[in-house]
Amino acid sequence: MTPEEFRRAGYAVVDWIADYWTTLGQRPVTSAEPPGALAAELPDGPTAHGEPVDAVLADLDRLVAPRLTHWQHPGFFGYFPANTSGPSVLGDLVSSGLGVQGMLWATGPACTELETAMLDWLADLMDLPERFRSTGAGGGVIQDSASSATLVATLAALHRAGDGRWRAAGVDRRYRAYTSTHGHSSIEKAARIAGLGGDGVRQVEVDPATQALRPEALRAAIEADRAAGDVPAIVVATIGTTSTTAVDPLPEIGRICAEYGIWLHVDAAYAGSAAVCPELRWSHAGLEYADSYCFDPHKWLLTGFDCDAFWVADSGELIEALTVLPEYLRNTATESGAVIDYRDWQVPLGRRFRALKLWFVLRWYGVEGLRAHIRSGVALAARFADRVRADDRFELAAPHPFSLVCFRLLGDDAANAELLARVNATGRVHLTHTRVDGRYTLRLAVGSPHTTAAHVDEAWDLLAGTAAR
Amino acid sequence: MTPEEFRRAGYAVVDWIADYWTTLGQRPVTSAEPPGALAAELPDGPTAHGEPVDAVLADLDRLVAPRLTHWQHPGFFGYFPANTSGPSVLGDLVSSGLGVQGMLWATGPACTELETAMLDWLADLMDLPERFRSTGAGGGVIQDSASSATLVATLAALHRAGDGRWRAAGVDRRYRAYTSTHGHSSIEKAARIAGLGGDGVRQVEVDPATQALRPEALRAAIEADRAAGDVPAIVVATIGTTSTTAVDPLPEIGRICAEYGIWLHVDAAYAGSAAVCPELRWSHAGLEYADSYCFDPHKWLLTGFDCDAFWVADSGELIEALTVLPEYLRNTATESGAVIDYRDWQVPLGRRFRALKLWFVLRWYGVEGLRAHIRSGVALAARFADRVRADDRFELAAPHPFSLVCFRLLGDDAANAELLARVNATGRVHLTHTRVDGRYTLRLAVGSPHTTAAHVDEAWDLLAGTAAR
Repeated sequence: MTPEEFRRAGYAVVDWIADYWTTLGQRPVTSAEPPGALAAELPDGPTAHGEPVDAVLADLDRLVAPRLTHWQHPGFFGYFPANTSGPSVLGDLVSSGLGVQGMLWATGPACTELETAMLDWLADLMDLPERFRSTGAGGGVIQDSASSATLVATLAALHRAGDGRWRAAGVDRRYRAYTSTHGHSSIEKAARIAGLGGDGVRQVEVDPATQALRPEALRAAIEADRAAGDVPAIVVATIGTTSTTAVDPLPEIGRICAEYGIWLHVDAAYAGSAAVCPELRWSHAGLEYADSYCFDPHKWLLTGFDCDAFWVADSGELIEALTVLPEYLRNTATESGAVIDYRDWQVPLGRRFRALKLWFVLRWYGVEGLRAHIRSGVALAARFADRVRADDRFELAAPHPFSLVCFRLLGDDAANAELLARVNATGRVHLTHTRVDGRYTLRLAVGSPHTTAAHVDEAWDLLAGTAAR
Repeated sequence: MTPEEFRRAGYAVVDWIADYWTTLGQRPVTSAEPPGALAAELPDGPTAHGEPVDAVLADLDRLVAPRLTHWQHPGFFGYFPANTSGPSVLGDLVSSGLGVQGMLWATGPACTELETAMLDWLADLMDLPERFRSTGAGGGVIQDSASSATLVATLAALHRAGDGRWRAAGVDRRYRAYTSTHGHSSIEKAARIAGLGGDGVRQVEVDPATQALRPEALRAAIEADRAAGDVPAIVVATIGTTSTTAVDPLPEIGRICAEYGIWLHVDAAYAGSAAVCPELRWSHAGLEYADSYCFDPHKWLLTGFDCDAFWVADSGELIEALTVLPEYLRNTATESGAVIDYRDWQVPLGRRFRALKLWFVLRWYGVEGLRAHIRSGVALAARFADRVRADDRFELAAPHPFSLVCFRLLGDDAANAELLARVNATGRVHLTHTRVDGRYTLRLAVGSPHTTAAHVDEAWDLLAGTAAR
């Protein structure tokens, strides 16, 4: 494809996206078709001599778009949001066009330096502890997801716990990881990947009133393991759990970790974005105890997946844990020690120029634009919670400090599952569920910049109306 | 940003990329600026109220582009290529605009089904063994990189070796991984991540004539480990090693793995693309023994990073190794067992709609277009090798079955390092180096669709001319 062919086809694709966003609210949020519907309509392979882009775009409309779950839809309230924005898409488009490999500083100096700068910008914007800035021993990096951030934090913690033996000799299965019973599934997955097995993870009980980890239960679990000869290696605390956005008490947890010399990783995948607003920074109190911290701009900060922002207080430990230097990657810049080679901060070797989308987003919205977005989500969630509170057929299942509301119909689990299925079947909204204290609970998560009060009210009207029937 | 603002800015970014590609050959391939040059020119943070896209594009020109290593430059011959193409950029742009999360079938049915179909298309196109098709127990998935493919293959192998105990009880440090001394650094990294430690990897010697793994040495290493009470768990064979594109003898290695019940993973990160050409499929002989296989369309098949195509013969083992199912991800489609949830095939939970870029590339180029691209690279490498062969100051350091040529100036390592530095300093070309049999060796890797005979000849003229001086 020549640059001129790309220019013409590029305009067409930009138009396609602009039109998609314009008409998104009129589409069903999810597809009602059964598994295999798309597969059945695809040919068995590519043609011998190629096809024009127009043909592909026509199939995108005819075959693909109708079989999607539309995550950018203003009526999408499922899981946690994964919203993008115009500037994010444009930043990523530049990244695709440049096609730069950022594995080493030498393979893309600006790719590395812009990433370091964007993570410092974010740290300032969120008032993160000084220890995470690149000006000291710490620094930030973009991971694909919070799952990967938790994995590399776990590996760095094992390296530390192993006193230098882990790199060569492997993991000691007596090492233990701790999180609350509402810690994300990626914590168990990271422990399994790292060779600890699921048995290596202690799921510490939560306070029923807050759904947050109980520090005294954490201390008891650590003491019991130590008494049994096991070695506490990492605690993963959460700011904004996936089920209910509970906030674990970092100051108490942090003091325990400091006392026992345990790596503290803080997973704020969703709720971290809230810290751009000064009035929501209470959620990050105690973060100065953390050895590592991450949040996902790709969840609630208008940046397209994949963009997890991950910081460590001591990048040296992380690099030692992960680096392998073959001859074909040696270069004078690396050997000078004056540069960052981000390949040593992550699992894969290769990496895209993901800092560009953050740069575009931060510059387009500015500080106040980002705050306005977060505040809108919090306000819409509060508006929805008020409706729930005012209807005595419903109850709130947990506090809603951010933009997620957990609620249920007074009644059994089956009634709530039925309500969810019926409301989602309208195609107007999409909600998901969790369990709180063992009970089936509906979740409404606001995050799209296109979601307005009217969309939240429609969701409530559908829920209330369906409950009435 | 409204859809109409996006449309206008989108055209501008498309123009920026088309212009970048048009002028790329006139830019220096690499930047000569020292570390910190970009960082010193960036402001300390975003503005309060946002800026227009034009301002960001101006800084892209002024600050970022001059500090890049231009991987899409026709004179870029370093590492392995990581080329993109117009249709790939457009497919990824659609993916960014849709902003779909493909972690579960339910969260993006078409995202999952198109990915399965594209991996089956590729398997057909490359004539991969039947066991990797989704129609049986096997199937393919897109990973971010071959590093991640090697990691998940290692985890599945440990799960198998552990007879079901690995998931809960963790890794047994007696498990062993095997590769040649030229296996990629990601193999050691995967072993370290998985808790085996670097000591868990046996680097098996190569045949000096071919730089390929010696099967009898592999057998001896396995026997020695078994005699010592260790447990051989995985062999990683390579089609196209990073240093010299050596091809390990899969038929012999495969029979050894079958005999001892060891997982065989085949890493064809770069050279796998060659299999789209029937005349290059000799390199994949013996692949029917493999439990898993991967190659990177983002290296040599015109698809932008990140796109590693990874297949397993038994997806059930991989899924068992990696799945964790929390309540908030439960859904009726998953429970029906009729769908693929690709989150269980990879480390991260979230995933982008990466199949779109493959779909755009396969349809735009067609079968013959892709073959022509591979054949062009092989022919250009052969042309360059002929120049080396014809100049008695130089020697070829290894066979060149694909599009990489390894060569050196007759002389010591320092002379070759000096030659590389001087040629790269011209900014016209960029080559990298490796060591073959301990000796410093230059590598010229062809891959860009923009690279022509004239660019390869220019590279040779620079090398020969510099050597003369």
